[in-house]
Amino acid sequence: MELNHTHDASRRSWLDSANAAGCDFPLQNLPLSVFRRKGSTEAWRGGVAIGDQIVDLGALQSLPGLQDSAAEAVRAAAAPTLNGLLELGPESWRALRHGLYGLLQSGSSLARQVREALVPQLDAEHAVPVRIGDYTDFYTSLDHAVNCCRQFGIEVNPNFDWLPIAYHGRVSSIDVSGQQVYRPAGQYRTDPSSAPVYGPCQRLDYELEVGAVIGIGNARGTPIPLANAQQHIFGLCLLNDWSARDIQTWEMQPLGPFLAKNFATTLSPWIVTLEALLPYRTGWTRAPERPQPLDYLRSADNAAAGAFDIQLEVSILSARRQAQGRPPHKLTRTSFQHQYWTLGQMIAHHTVGGCNLQPGDLLGSGTVSGPNPWEAGALIELTVSGTHPADIGDGEQRGFLKDGDTVVFRGWCEREDYARIGFGVNYATVLPAPGPP
Amino acid sequence: MELNHTHDASRRSWLDSANAAGCDFPLQNLPLSVFRRKGSTEAWRGGVAIGDQIVDLGALQSLPGLQDSAAEAVRAAAAPTLNGLLELGPESWRALRHGLYGLLQSGSSLARQVREALVPQLDAEHAVPVRIGDYTDFYTSLDHAVNCCRQFGIEVNPNFDWLPIAYHGRVSSIDVSGQQVYRPAGQYRTDPSSAPVYGPCQRLDYELEVGAVIGIGNARGTPIPLANAQQHIFGLCLLNDWSARDIQTWEMQPLGPFLAKNFATTLSPWIVTLEALLPYRTGWTRAPERPQPLDYLRSADNAAAGAFDIQLEVSILSARRQAQGRPPHKLTRTSFQHQYWTLGQMIAHHTVGGCNLQPGDLLGSGTVSGPNPWEAGALIELTVSGTHPADIGDGEQRGFLKDGDTVVFRGWCEREDYARIGFGVNYATVLPAPGPP
Repeated sequence: MELNHTHDASRRSWLDSANAAGCDFPLQNLPLSVFRRKGSTEAWRGGVAIGDQIVDLGALQSLPGLQDSAAEAVRAAAAPTLNGLLELGPESWRALRHGLYGLLQSGSSLARQVREALVPQLDAEHAVPVRIGDYTDFYTSLDHAVNCCRQFGIEVNPNFDWLPIAYHGRVSSIDVSGQQVYRPAGQYRTDPSSAPVYGPCQRLDYELEVGAVIGIGNARGTPIPLANAQQHIFGLCLLNDWSARDIQTWEMQPLGPFLAKNFATTLSPWIVTLEALLPYRTGWTRAPERPQPLDYLRSADNAAAGAFDIQLEVSILSARRQAQGRPPHKLTRTSFQHQYWTLGQMIAHHTVGGCNLQPGDLLGSGTVSGPNPWEAGALIELTVSGTHPADIGDGEQRGFLKDGDTVVFRGWCEREDYARIGFGVNYATVLPAPGPP
Repeated sequence: MELNHTHDASRRSWLDSANAAGCDFPLQNLPLSVFRRKGSTEAWRGGVAIGDQIVDLGALQSLPGLQDSAAEAVRAAAAPTLNGLLELGPESWRALRHGLYGLLQSGSSLARQVREALVPQLDAEHAVPVRIGDYTDFYTSLDHAVNCCRQFGIEVNPNFDWLPIAYHGRVSSIDVSGQQVYRPAGQYRTDPSSAPVYGPCQRLDYELEVGAVIGIGNARGTPIPLANAQQHIFGLCLLNDWSARDIQTWEMQPLGPFLAKNFATTLSPWIVTLEALLPYRTGWTRAPERPQPLDYLRSADNAAAGAFDIQLEVSILSARRQAQGRPPHKLTRTSFQHQYWTLGQMIAHHTVGGCNLQPGDLLGSGTVSGPNPWEAGALIELTVSGTHPADIGDGEQRGFLKDGDTVVFRGWCEREDYARIGFGVNYATVLPAPGPP
């Protein structure tokens, strides 16, 4: 994939809101979601964000003036999940982007007809945009690993230097921004020598992650080489990997986290396509004191590694602050470019043993944390396991999350000479734990 | 659920092969699969095993003489997956069993018509019978845990006594008996102080497990109490959790097994329903030196715990032995009743934090090993990490699996005064690792 006219920052849309400074969804972005009008029983269908509107791909199906391949892609994306579009492959995704770009840019002869296919974002509700076959969560930020291990007085495990560590996550509890997350109950120990107790999690946390949606998979037994890995990614979103730290500490030996993670995962509704993100690719740089990885995790073409400079921000809105009509309080600001292992390396590793990926599979990057204290992507790091509570505004503090807290993620890319593009918002609210079974 | 006339061992079928001694599929069993005629392009549809035949539920749809609820269940099960049947719930599963029982028993007035809906099992091929949303693999055999930990000179982790440990597994690489399993390649260390190398797995193993198919799920945030857990199970099958021990040892800290497991999982084609298994329920007995579990893992009604006495057997057929036309060599013989945690406890624990199960979800029991040396459900135990190779007949030995080896699982239940019912066969063959990516 190469930069092309759809990345030209000077182009504008006929829709004014798309040209506003700081807008997440200018002409150069065109991310996809699945939506319907709020509170309606309409069919879920694909939509594309532009300014403060959504292009309803269901309504756009009947529009003449799209080339064959773009029209086919629109039809595939007008379904209740985007899997049909994913299966069509990169050429179709590209045709869809370029076709919509033509329809939405200033001077389009079809602007009037396209305007009839717009739905205001404020009037829409979203569903998880793809039917996810498998969800894999990685652990690829060295800063996150170092921050966490320091708290337990241990070194980062030696395999971190050699492979992007990962585990399989839970699909059934993945939902989209706006999710109401029940505080999980479970087993934990209040001190390491006692018997466990059952009760609501006392150390509820978020994890700031980037999600990658697989567009095209591979056959079982046929690994994806690093050089081709990015062609298999449809796009990226923001992902909150909710974590119950007390449950996690007690349960995770020897087979990894289970109930500590599987109660909820929240996705942003919009998937920003890899083509839109091309201006924000960065090279992969190995920390000089770390070993050279094995061949299948190395690429002569550094851009093929699949690293991206995505600005990320975490805020918290307490119930009290929300009742006062105040905005969320910013806690963290970092970039995805700090990640030690890249998306390309994650895919190459995931498939090297013959495991097959499928269209719609979801990869989580693992917590994104940067080298500075204000770049910690989880409360366990930011508050040193709750011992140094963070100020969340108006005199409130948090070691871990309280019921009623809303966690808000934002992400965007900006770079001189290119249009700023955003991921929109990923927010979700903590509900009290239900009673015992 | 209670024992009823469908468990009466004295009843016979009009199909002679169903009444033969040692048959896995008598009138009292009636397990379900999804099948089509071998090598055909027919639609996949549900089928029920009887003797050496399959009742084609697609063909049976048009038969008059089934009660409404049974007819509805047959229609739902005539689809390419059994999920529609699962969603109908326990009353429908029961109606299907009782309806088919009536059609297949001696003296049925519809025997001639049903005979027209039979397909010989030898002429059929099978698909994974359900669309699996999530796959969870447990670790619930204390004997397995002790055997494995002893090899590393460590104690079983203290949480084993308190909860059924589990991790999420990979759905995309689950296939049905007959699967060709590529030996995975990946990273491992040849000695613990060296850097890892990349290459084909040198310590390929199987794990003998029982799989449970979830029939009815639960809402997010609504745990399933132990007393109700069994109502959520549709049925059981045999499951081979293929494991690459060298890759596993290197990768599994801190987040659990990943590439060591996600290249393949093999299921037996037949799902034996929970109703068929009722005569084989056993109570849960806590080892006296182990602690009393927390309330949500205890039940006043011991039968509700969900323990089953299922006889299990592992055999290996080497390529050489196969070429000579010889049968598989028996390695292991054990019972599922030795498992420390039961299926009911697995479900109660899985959902206690609010995680939602869905129809078609798959649970693996974890390796089933019994207290005696010949009851080890994996080669790592049976051969003490390959240091004491097992005799597999004709002078061949195995520490771990070689290319061309076929691993064969069988399972059945037998008890005085009840009909023997079987699970059929779960077999799969190891192929050489593909070249590097």
